[in-house]
Amino acid sequence: MARSSWRLVFAAGAGLALALEALPWLIRWLLAGRRPRREVLFFPSQVTCTEALLQAPGLPPGPSGCPCSLPHSESSLSRLLRALLAARSSLELCLFAFSSPQLGRAVQLLHQRGVRVRVITDCDYMALNGSQIGLLRKAGIQVRHDQDLGYMHHKFAIVDKKVLITGSLNWTTQAIQNNRENVLIMEDTEYVRLFLEEFERIWEEFDPTKYSFFPQKHRGH
Amino acid sequence: MARSSWRLVFAAGAGLALALEALPWLIRWLLAGRRPRREVLFFPSQVTCTEALLQAPGLPPGPSGCPCSLPHSESSLSRLLRALLAARSSLELCLFAFSSPQLGRAVQLLHQRGVRVRVITDCDYMALNGSQIGLLRKAGIQVRHDQDLGYMHHKFAIVDKKVLITGSLNWTTQAIQNNRENVLIMEDTEYVRLFLEEFERIWEEFDPTKYSFFPQKHRGH
Repeated sequence: MARSSWRLVFAAGAGLALALEALPWLIRWLLAGRRPRREVLFFPSQVTCTEALLQAPGLPPGPSGCPCSLPHSESSLSRLLRALLAARSSLELCLFAFSSPQLGRAVQLLHQRGVRVRVITDCDYMALNGSQIGLLRKAGIQVRHDQDLGYMHHKFAIVDKKVLITGSLNWTTQAIQNNRENVLIMEDTEYVRLFLEEFERIWEEFDPTKYSFFPQKHRGH
Repeated sequence: MARSSWRLVFAAGAGLALALEALPWLIRWLLAGRRPRREVLFFPSQVTCTEALLQAPGLPPGPSGCPCSLPHSESSLSRLLRALLAARSSLELCLFAFSSPQLGRAVQLLHQRGVRVRVITDCDYMALNGSQIGLLRKAGIQVRHDQDLGYMHHKFAIVDKKVLITGSLNWTTQAIQNNRENVLIMEDTEYVRLFLEEFERIWEEFDPTKYSFFPQKHRGH
């Protein structure tokens, strides 16, 4: 066999070896690219200052803006706020209880930025003292609620129809600061689709034109 | 170049081409193998007969065993029961409220089959009428609970350290039959690891040898 042909065989073999060598890296790279965001926040959350996150546009950013004595570090609450504040186009909220002032301010900020916010909540809890629902409605955000005996007990949010935020946490200061709770943050096409379908189903069902506030009276006469 | 060396070059080239051809299949196969189980159950659940699932070993299986008038079809509750009853070695339960008789029977069945069951619950809810916690303890299942003011508000289960079951659903008949709820069933290494760590943290913290039932009295004297 001529020397030049050996060179060719060697080159082909080396190419093959290199390709096989690179295979695991290639596969890992492809897997990493497809891996959705998966995070879990556990509560109770450390009480930290969230002013830097919640400043209205125009004010100087950064923790230096707030002179309060709370720690200015990350916490489960600040991570939850960040995940919500990442919204650019839409936010669906389906929440049994919503009284946390920080989370309420975040939702109002998004509404001011032009994000389409829709809220579904439970009729029993929304009237309680401290509920954020009235403030959201005053700000012009659409809210719908059940009017039956079972609870609308979901606690989920969908950001930009891409990220699902769901768990055991009611959006109350009591739960955030004192309870053992979990919140999953998942960029997952399949779960987002299923929860969005559930949201739209309930949104239609709770259409206010279908409310009958005095069902017995209406039925009785 | 001699004919034999051309053959070698051709063989090496063909090998490389085949390897590249097979690459997408290989990647798809690897991805499919890695795709975890992902399911979501929405509630309220249709009320169905779950006797066939909950029969003790020895009794004839199948819905024909129960002559009751309830539908014998699948429901969110029956799917949840199936996911739990798949346990072969261990079941961790971390539940705010647990009063559903069907879910209680499923947990007792697993305990009878030799599955290691551990339960963490909330001290406020466990004493209520209808709670399953007393029955589980009588059956010999280990239960630990908080003794502080915040709620142990998690609602998750881990099956065989492989499948995470978590959501908004408290394990009560009220919630199962009347509330809007969600339960995720996920075979997900990362989430299982994080929730298992949370379970073990709480399990240690709620060690009964550390209980101080009259903290003020102890501190006072």
